[in-house]
Amino acid sequence: MSNVTYNAIGYAAQTSSAPLAPMQFNRRAPRPDDVAIEVLYCGVCHSDIHQARNEWGFAVYPVMPGHEIVGKVTAVGENVTKHKVGDLVGVGCMVDSCRECSACKEDLEQYCLEGATMTYCTPDRVDGSNTMGGYSDSIVVSEHFVVRIPENLDPASAAPLLCAGITTYSPLQHYGVEAGDKVGILGMGGLGHMGIKFAKAMGAEVTLFTRSAAKAEEAYKQGADHVIVSTDPEQMKAAAESFDFLLDTIPVPHDLNPYLQTLRFDGVHILVGLIEPVDPALDAFNLVFKRRVLAGSLIGGIAETQEMLDFSAANGITCDIEMLDIKNINEAFERVVKGDVKYRFVIDMKTLKA
Amino acid sequence: MSNVTYNAIGYAAQTSSAPLAPMQFNRRAPRPDDVAIEVLYCGVCHSDIHQARNEWGFAVYPVMPGHEIVGKVTAVGENVTKHKVGDLVGVGCMVDSCRECSACKEDLEQYCLEGATMTYCTPDRVDGSNTMGGYSDSIVVSEHFVVRIPENLDPASAAPLLCAGITTYSPLQHYGVEAGDKVGILGMGGLGHMGIKFAKAMGAEVTLFTRSAAKAEEAYKQGADHVIVSTDPEQMKAAAESFDFLLDTIPVPHDLNPYLQTLRFDGVHILVGLIEPVDPALDAFNLVFKRRVLAGSLIGGIAETQEMLDFSAANGITCDIEMLDIKNINEAFERVVKGDVKYRFVIDMKTLKA
Repeated sequence: MSNVTYNAIGYAAQTSSAPLAPMQFNRRAPRPDDVAIEVLYCGVCHSDIHQARNEWGFAVYPVMPGHEIVGKVTAVGENVTKHKVGDLVGVGCMVDSCRECSACKEDLEQYCLEGATMTYCTPDRVDGSNTMGGYSDSIVVSEHFVVRIPENLDPASAAPLLCAGITTYSPLQHYGVEAGDKVGILGMGGLGHMGIKFAKAMGAEVTLFTRSAAKAEEAYKQGADHVIVSTDPEQMKAAAESFDFLLDTIPVPHDLNPYLQTLRFDGVHILVGLIEPVDPALDAFNLVFKRRVLAGSLIGGIAETQEMLDFSAANGITCDIEMLDIKNINEAFERVVKGDVKYRFVIDMKTLKA
Repeated sequence: MSNVTYNAIGYAAQTSSAPLAPMQFNRRAPRPDDVAIEVLYCGVCHSDIHQARNEWGFAVYPVMPGHEIVGKVTAVGENVTKHKVGDLVGVGCMVDSCRECSACKEDLEQYCLEGATMTYCTPDRVDGSNTMGGYSDSIVVSEHFVVRIPENLDPASAAPLLCAGITTYSPLQHYGVEAGDKVGILGMGGLGHMGIKFAKAMGAEVTLFTRSAAKAEEAYKQGADHVIVSTDPEQMKAAAESFDFLLDTIPVPHDLNPYLQTLRFDGVHILVGLIEPVDPALDAFNLVFKRRVLAGSLIGGIAETQEMLDFSAANGITCDIEMLDIKNINEAFERVVKGDVKYRFVIDMKTLKA
């Protein structure tokens, strides 16, 4: 093991009320199974804001966000076999897990029984240090948690696939979406627009549910076949019992009942955005009387993340992005909170040194 | 088609506030596909009370309840091939459906897109008359909706299998419960005790969740391997992330969150009792962070009902019952409402004529 540590720089929040600001720190020297990466691009996820501001209550400061990372391998530990210096690679929401439990053995590290080590704000399993994310010039990660970025994907536009991409791809795959299925996508943000692209590439007939009729044109551009304005009871009623799957990317509490009623018997409503209590109340009748399913899904495992990247490359899928100078990150956070971005900010890490 | 109609007698409620009382009426002459049945036994389901009292708001009077019917075939229409005079047969919650829709074609008549015809309180699909249930000396039903009662099942104890049995068997089968699975049964009433028996016969390790420690002995007698007192936070905490399936037979709103937390990742919580809004609120976090599933299930299809009866016969499963003189039906309703029955009243229809 090398004893060299890296002088690193990144943007971090020092308290829940502080803006992000530059911070110098050290990255560890690569352990035998580690890959050291020069970060080229990092997506900006709403979770980054929640954690920087401690809105979930378990932030550990300093919080250096960023879990949609694309970069180049600069060094590898002595036991690394999966990646080599110069490779274009990605790191998503996780950088480690126990690797021994039933979830890890099923390649579902995100459900690790001991809790996965997240890319930021989590104690490292070896030295206990607080993990620091990708709003940084470099990162050091165990090779198992580093994925290959296929050559024909644009590296910047591929970055958000590591979170927004896998979060939407995984449940569509898990529930077996296939050609001819009728899939509804709820919400048209970073997750929603990826959901449209993946469901369409899987052969589904795709409908966007949105509160805003103004989003219809954009939805069709993204590949949606139909748009339903969810605030129009007539449109919702006309869609009764017609969908096989709903992918619900709406990140705030909303009434699930009118959506559930658009599912056919055995239909599945998958939550990937909402993680708060369901309000107004879920009416159990809507599940029981049609054997419907309400399910949740969290990102995806590492093997599945690689599969998603390969699927994206094969189908020409990337995220629609707006490139960001890291010096404007605090302004970008405000725009994300307002939903004013199509559909993901990606930090160009060259701007860190400019 | 015979033009003979049957002079029938049964117990019915004439209004939502009236007690059940004897009523004379006519059963139709068998149509070509009909089976006429002398009712020998009929179980008393809580739904009977809800409908008699119009507690769901869609009762049509007179309400003659009863959908756990065992009887003998007394006549058959000219096209009937499945049953013959003298056969011991059963009728459950449904007496007809459209038979053409995707649900009916998948043997899921309970999810018929046009709505199944229920055994009571529903317009007959041919003549529009209000269906009358099994609290009666006779019933006439299309052969497709009549099942065979296996010889080695006690006819009276088999009656509740037609609703309480299939309601619990169907979801356990649908979700693939098998040997070694850890199954929790929530609630220990008519449905709950059947859930224990079926899950055990499928090879699962079965735990009863109950508010009352006093029910433990009874649960073990029914075949449960373990009992968790759900009001004890320590016992609930100790069970965290350990169950594959929960079969929730609790018929009133209750907090699903502590139960969901006892499910492992990918675990499934199946509602068969609750059909009202979930209160307190479901926390979506409990689904998303472990890819858990909240599902509903409604009775079962006709082919599956026959399969359940055959499974019951093969495994010596019947319902624990208390035999009832129909003249005491109103008192029995009060005891059902109080949960004071182990576990199902079954009307001995001989008492109708005594």
